[in-house]
Amino acid sequence: MATQFYSKRNLQFLLYEVLDVQSLTEYPYFQDHARETFDMVLDSAEQISEKLLKPLLTEMDRKEPQLVNGRIKIHQGMFPILKKFGEDGWINAGFSYEEGGQQIPSTVLSSAAFIFQAANYSASVFPFLTSGAANLIRSFGSQELKETFTPKMYTGEWQGTMALTEPDAGSSLSDISTTAEPTDSEGVYKIKGQKIYISAGDHDGCDNVIHLMLAKIKGGPLGAKGISLFVVPQKRIKKTGEKEEMGDRNYGEQIGLQTTKIKQQKSNIELQENDVITAGVYHKMGYKGAPIAHLMVGSNDNTFGYLVGEPHKGLTYMFQMMNEARIGVGMNATAIGTAAFYASLEYAKERPQGRVISDKDVTKPQVQIIRHADVKRMLLFQKAVIEGSLALLTQCSMYADLASVTESEEKEHYHLLLDLLTPIAKSYPSEMCCLTTSAAVQILGGAGYTTDFPVEQFYREARIHPIHEGTTGIHGLDLLGRKIIIKNGKSLQLLVAEILKTIEKASSIDLLKPFAQKLQVYLGKTDTITKHLLSLASKDLEIFLSDATLYLELFGIMTISWQWLVQAIKAEEALQAGAIGDDFDFYQGKIFTLRYFYEYELVKIDSLMKRLLSEDNVTVEMETAWF
Amino acid sequence: MATQFYSKRNLQFLLYEVLDVQSLTEYPYFQDHARETFDMVLDSAEQISEKLLKPLLTEMDRKEPQLVNGRIKIHQGMFPILKKFGEDGWINAGFSYEEGGQQIPSTVLSSAAFIFQAANYSASVFPFLTSGAANLIRSFGSQELKETFTPKMYTGEWQGTMALTEPDAGSSLSDISTTAEPTDSEGVYKIKGQKIYISAGDHDGCDNVIHLMLAKIKGGPLGAKGISLFVVPQKRIKKTGEKEEMGDRNYGEQIGLQTTKIKQQKSNIELQENDVITAGVYHKMGYKGAPIAHLMVGSNDNTFGYLVGEPHKGLTYMFQMMNEARIGVGMNATAIGTAAFYASLEYAKERPQGRVISDKDVTKPQVQIIRHADVKRMLLFQKAVIEGSLALLTQCSMYADLASVTESEEKEHYHLLLDLLTPIAKSYPSEMCCLTTSAAVQILGGAGYTTDFPVEQFYREARIHPIHEGTTGIHGLDLLGRKIIIKNGKSLQLLVAEILKTIEKASSIDLLKPFAQKLQVYLGKTDTITKHLLSLASKDLEIFLSDATLYLELFGIMTISWQWLVQAIKAEEALQAGAIGDDFDFYQGKIFTLRYFYEYELVKIDSLMKRLLSEDNVTVEMETAWF
Repeated sequence: MATQFYSKRNLQFLLYEVLDVQSLTEYPYFQDHARETFDMVLDSAEQISEKLLKPLLTEMDRKEPQLVNGRIKIHQGMFPILKKFGEDGWINAGFSYEEGGQQIPSTVLSSAAFIFQAANYSASVFPFLTSGAANLIRSFGSQELKETFTPKMYTGEWQGTMALTEPDAGSSLSDISTTAEPTDSEGVYKIKGQKIYISAGDHDGCDNVIHLMLAKIKGGPLGAKGISLFVVPQKRIKKTGEKEEMGDRNYGEQIGLQTTKIKQQKSNIELQENDVITAGVYHKMGYKGAPIAHLMVGSNDNTFGYLVGEPHKGLTYMFQMMNEARIGVGMNATAIGTAAFYASLEYAKERPQGRVISDKDVTKPQVQIIRHADVKRMLLFQKAVIEGSLALLTQCSMYADLASVTESEEKEHYHLLLDLLTPIAKSYPSEMCCLTTSAAVQILGGAGYTTDFPVEQFYREARIHPIHEGTTGIHGLDLLGRKIIIKNGKSLQLLVAEILKTIEKASSIDLLKPFAQKLQVYLGKTDTITKHLLSLASKDLEIFLSDATLYLELFGIMTISWQWLVQAIKAEEALQAGAIGDDFDFYQGKIFTLRYFYEYELVKIDSLMKRLLSEDNVTVEMETAWF
Repeated sequence: MATQFYSKRNLQFLLYEVLDVQSLTEYPYFQDHARETFDMVLDSAEQISEKLLKPLLTEMDRKEPQLVNGRIKIHQGMFPILKKFGEDGWINAGFSYEEGGQQIPSTVLSSAAFIFQAANYSASVFPFLTSGAANLIRSFGSQELKETFTPKMYTGEWQGTMALTEPDAGSSLSDISTTAEPTDSEGVYKIKGQKIYISAGDHDGCDNVIHLMLAKIKGGPLGAKGISLFVVPQKRIKKTGEKEEMGDRNYGEQIGLQTTKIKQQKSNIELQENDVITAGVYHKMGYKGAPIAHLMVGSNDNTFGYLVGEPHKGLTYMFQMMNEARIGVGMNATAIGTAAFYASLEYAKERPQGRVISDKDVTKPQVQIIRHADVKRMLLFQKAVIEGSLALLTQCSMYADLASVTESEEKEHYHLLLDLLTPIAKSYPSEMCCLTTSAAVQILGGAGYTTDFPVEQFYREARIHPIHEGTTGIHGLDLLGRKIIIKNGKSLQLLVAEILKTIEKASSIDLLKPFAQKLQVYLGKTDTITKHLLSLASKDLEIFLSDATLYLELFGIMTISWQWLVQAIKAEEALQAGAIGDDFDFYQGKIFTLRYFYEYELVKIDSLMKRLLSEDNVTVEMETAWF
């Protein structure tokens, strides 16, 4: 089993050298923090990962969750992990002090999540689903909903989910058929329908599951405009007595942060079944440790759901969470890719096989395979994708943090950048880490195909990401059909301005000047393609969007090229300042990976451009009978 | 479960319309055959696949072989399949009448194998391993070896293997350390060593396993020049009495061919253990139904092996089989890709989801996803790769058949073409079908990631092919470092001449002229790159070969583009001749897939070219410490 599963050095480089995440502490909301507290959060994530998550990586893959007597039984090793996530305050760490949170920036928290995900993706998904669900309740729910549900979600005793997908409504959410019928109590509805592919939708590691569920109120508008959001607990909560004071709870204590004392109250409550039946557990190619449920809701006409916010605004609310979830998916993919990279790097450094091309003398011992150029190419490919993706993802989180603490125009600036980059940040890592984990398998050769090494598991796990939280095709449509166009293209203008700033800076550094020039050229090509495609929009929508997936791919390559130049500026500055030893090696690695990316990846835009400028609409014109 | 797993219509198109495989019957060796017998072979393969292989596809994946008391137990459903393959004469169907074979052309037989592989890859590997091993014995072994071992291999009672890989010698065969020590009996050696990843290296569906094993005779030359080939049976054969006449055996009867009666003799033999110990069975990501063994040979100093041919020529002999096996691997990959294509096509035709971009009216029912351009793109991608690959593979088999029945210059002509195309025919389908099976998963979305549908299994199974029978990296070196260069580039000249012939023909057809011109342009680009790379060879071998894998990729795309033009010529001729109904649809599909390939795949050469002409040797210069 590989020992290293992520690079602390690289994470610190991105957070402190590239993004200057410390600067966030100048804003009042983050003023209690400093680099030291951020480091503590990250160190704590590493410790939990090493101690609890990583040892279960293979185990959880081999012993899948099973449906037993209507309940999904998960690997028992998850129980202490779930407890730990709740006790240490990870679930609401990003929320305000008033909500028992620690006001930790998203950039730091998502970096901690990255560590968990790299250690054991399946184990990492539970708390962040709960966090996302609680976030919806606290953002849009009534005071009563918040008080009833969030406290036990924060402690990890109750699991949260996003319950969207139905048998006849996967990518097309407007077609959901789960219904909500008003009852005599205001805000309380009877819910009826089926939900499929619900991550952590039921398991025996919690006392209750709180579904944030989309349904249509009877008589409401058709399609997406008639979708509302409900809290649908697996078990209903019945208050049986007065609230009791429980004394203070010290959130954050365990991870060494300044503690936040909030008054805890205990209601005497009783849990009653809410007619949410677990009809099945899905068996999957990968991330087998996470239970994915098929739910029957209201089969006995006895499921109650509680409206979140206003009727018919469910999709708008949900998309707030989806956008975070999408950045999260990009991070998951990057984390799995990172673990696979280090597993294959370790193998390549240790495994002797063959000889260098210039000296085939068979009397000499074989050399480590990392000496072969083709193996180095496969390693550089992985490094370029995962470190480039992580740079983009942390940049996105930084925009989210900045948007949350700034006002008016500045706020909009960051929002628009984040919004534009979301489909890229979700899709580029998701698609590419299928290929990087494949490269990891290839480096191990036959051994990589066996279950004796973890890379085949990473290969299987990586494959989910181009599918969930919107397939790659959906994100292509989102980018080209919406994000590029809205506000008269303002988002794109903002991004181009950012890229031009980077190009300008890099142009003033001798070593980086040729790369800056190259990026400028490809930025121009991207602009040509964008204008060409937009010119088609008024003529034929179908043709305009037919290659949106390729446009997304192109845009992703261009964006990651920008992120590599951003990193290279910092690396070259450090080298010029006289970095030595491990630091020298680290920064040299950045410069070489930049070179790799511009040599092997950026040039892919040329082929994509040929296709995107072509007038042959073969995919649109192809007919079913001809396949 | 998908119903269709391959296209009979497409196979017939390639064999009879494109390749004119019937023309082989003009050569004496194949003169007893006609299209009718070829069809019978293919129909028989389809029937066995439908009836025996396909029903076990999922089952064999779920119930892996296990090592029980030193023996690997395989799925019991394999027993009747193994019997059937032996009884019906599949194992030696391509061999001469004298050897009990049916002299069926390789082009037809490999097409039949393709059907088996598409139905159930794991089940299909057993007989063809035996066939390959027997082929080595009959080609290079003594009369005694032939008589002792091949008859029961042909009946399928004894399994054959290729035993090459060792713990310290995977890609680097020259470093094998298994030893052979002469005994007093001529040709009999004591063998000692370890072999790993031996496909069908032991299982309870046969009475004996005949390993064709590489070992080094003590005191022989170092490296590859000291490798010899041995027959190492799992159980030694002791003759205990006189031979008995068994009467005639009618080979081929079951598959409706003219039967070949040969005298069968039964020796009274006894089997004795030969100290070949099965130390383990590998658990793998895919093709789980096939047992892959770890063997300890001569641990008790009691393993006897029988020299095949001359000492120290083992690698030369083995490479004859390896080259066939490599074409076979390309076929396996294509077959799995084909099964995945039809599974996703069927789903895309049935699954309603979303609406066409030009009409989003939610009151209308959802449309089948095959109406979406992006889904059609993913289907066309699969179709383009698998049908293009199958065209190349059947073309290679045709060259093999022609080489076997022609003489002198003509023979060399076909040999050189086959030799040059072998790394492409192995690697292009192997690499690309990882991507096409991924596209199949993507079309099914979340469903594709679950074990409820077969596509996730195809995705896992496809991943082995870039690894076995030489990794893609090895084939890149083989193509650029050997095949392009040998005989002063004569092989390449022959291939270019073939491609130019196709271009010329296509240029005379209005519809195809633009494609012919495009291919001509890219052939020129390929030539530019080849010359550039060869100019580096004299300067720095390491740099010359550092991007051999990319050159292989480029060469593959160019070759498949040629094969698409070859197919399109026949299709357009048929359309001009007035094809109607299903035929019209079929040929239209060919023309549209040609268009897809030239629009989306051929243009990838532009990006590869940019890289291959660049002077930045980043992968060569990268150092271990910088990763």
